[in-house]
Amino acid sequence: MKVARFAHGESISFGIVDEEEHELVVLKSDPLFAGYDPTGERVPLGEARLLAPVIPRSKVVAVGKNYREHAEEMGGEAPTEPLLFLKPNTSVIGPGDAIVLPPESAQVEHEGELAVVIGRVARRVSEADAASVIFGYTIANDVTARDLQRRDGQWTRAKGFDTFCPLGPVISTEIDLERGVIETAVNGERRQRGSFADMVHSVSTIVAYASNVFTLLPGDVILTGTPAGVGPIEDGDRVEVTVSGLGTLANPVRVPA
Amino acid sequence: MKVARFAHGESISFGIVDEEEHELVVLKSDPLFAGYDPTGERVPLGEARLLAPVIPRSKVVAVGKNYREHAEEMGGEAPTEPLLFLKPNTSVIGPGDAIVLPPESAQVEHEGELAVVIGRVARRVSEADAASVIFGYTIANDVTARDLQRRDGQWTRAKGFDTFCPLGPVISTEIDLERGVIETAVNGERRQRGSFADMVHSVSTIVAYASNVFTLLPGDVILTGTPAGVGPIEDGDRVEVTVSGLGTLANPVRVPA
Repeated sequence: MKVARFAHGESISFGIVDEEEHELVVLKSDPLFAGYDPTGERVPLGEARLLAPVIPRSKVVAVGKNYREHAEEMGGEAPTEPLLFLKPNTSVIGPGDAIVLPPESAQVEHEGELAVVIGRVARRVSEADAASVIFGYTIANDVTARDLQRRDGQWTRAKGFDTFCPLGPVISTEIDLERGVIETAVNGERRQRGSFADMVHSVSTIVAYASNVFTLLPGDVILTGTPAGVGPIEDGDRVEVTVSGLGTLANPVRVPA
Repeated sequence: MKVARFAHGESISFGIVDEEEHELVVLKSDPLFAGYDPTGERVPLGEARLLAPVIPRSKVVAVGKNYREHAEEMGGEAPTEPLLFLKPNTSVIGPGDAIVLPPESAQVEHEGELAVVIGRVARRVSEADAASVIFGYTIANDVTARDLQRRDGQWTRAKGFDTFCPLGPVISTEIDLERGVIETAVNGERRQRGSFADMVHSVSTIVAYASNVFTLLPGDVILTGTPAGVGPIEDGDRVEVTVSGLGTLANPVRVPA
């Protein structure tokens, strides 16, 4: 099942995507907190503007260097434990929203990633139980000011600017972690490609590990790392991150107005 | 004026501290969002249990190495720009709540700090305008697993565990940044002492700088760095951070139940 958050006319709603009818089955509330309770309305997909499918109330957790070839292109090895960092919820934007290049950086880069959306309060869950606290999966772009990342040492600023966490277009409650593939393209040209099977730390490992540090809350989002091929984005570019079964998260890039 | 969030009987409320009468003037809602609107009730301070005076909906931002002597004791220099990192809101606890030592660390340390509570949406504010977006000030303890901080490189895990961000006991809308002093004691013995005048980057500089990275939201909290004298805390200890005019934030330390 695929869940979307969307604007239609004046209202913002959650809906289930009916892929056969190209419609959204409108829900009474956020299914993360209120289950799947339809209003009876349907909205044609073409009339809806999809929004970030979740706004984290607490955390966007992310994992550094979780694909070996990406760790190598960054000049290091993959860490033996997941390397966690945080992005603030103020960095979240939705599909189609612009990634705005801050004047502080001369080198902003794309990092297409699979994102996990937490569905239940989770504290020190085991790897075996990790799947039970996952609501679903979406696509993320862990936009990074590479020059500031190097200069600061701590990654908070480089990865925390407003608009630096595109999420969407939908949350899928299922995904094929064995055969799934993630690709990032800039202006239609492929730059990154990775198989989820090549993650250094699996989704279950990451969720369990993160839950050993912080209590995970419904709506928390965990970014699972980016494959090799990161590179710069510039004013006027269009970045597209595609995951098998999840669709494409597309965002234009621009300088501040 | 001093604002508290407190539990009394079954209810949780916000109130203004009447220091002469030792009472809380109960407010209808959170003054951060709804102004100062009294219900007409008063609660004796001795009957109230003070809670963390704010629960950040978005960010706890913190600044590393913002007192020169602390930067030196950590084996480095104070950075020329504020060095930002984030603590998750799930790490926030209130006065009297226990700091719980995670089994992953063998060296958890106290870092007493002055905290700024943001009162208005702030995006790229100037240093001159920074005061206008501040709601008030409270006390924080930036509890840190020093061994994990060194091992991970990124500070997120070391500073992000549940209970690692005690806040309170109250928010004061005023503070003397020229003459104010912060002290941290463990079991009654003074360990840290610093003057706000000795901050490398001033409160205004930090707020302006952070607002250049992320949009600051009402209820965001910014920790302004810790003075020299950080050191370990252990099961059974009691940590007290005292700021002139703000009172004392006291927390016991314990191992997990």
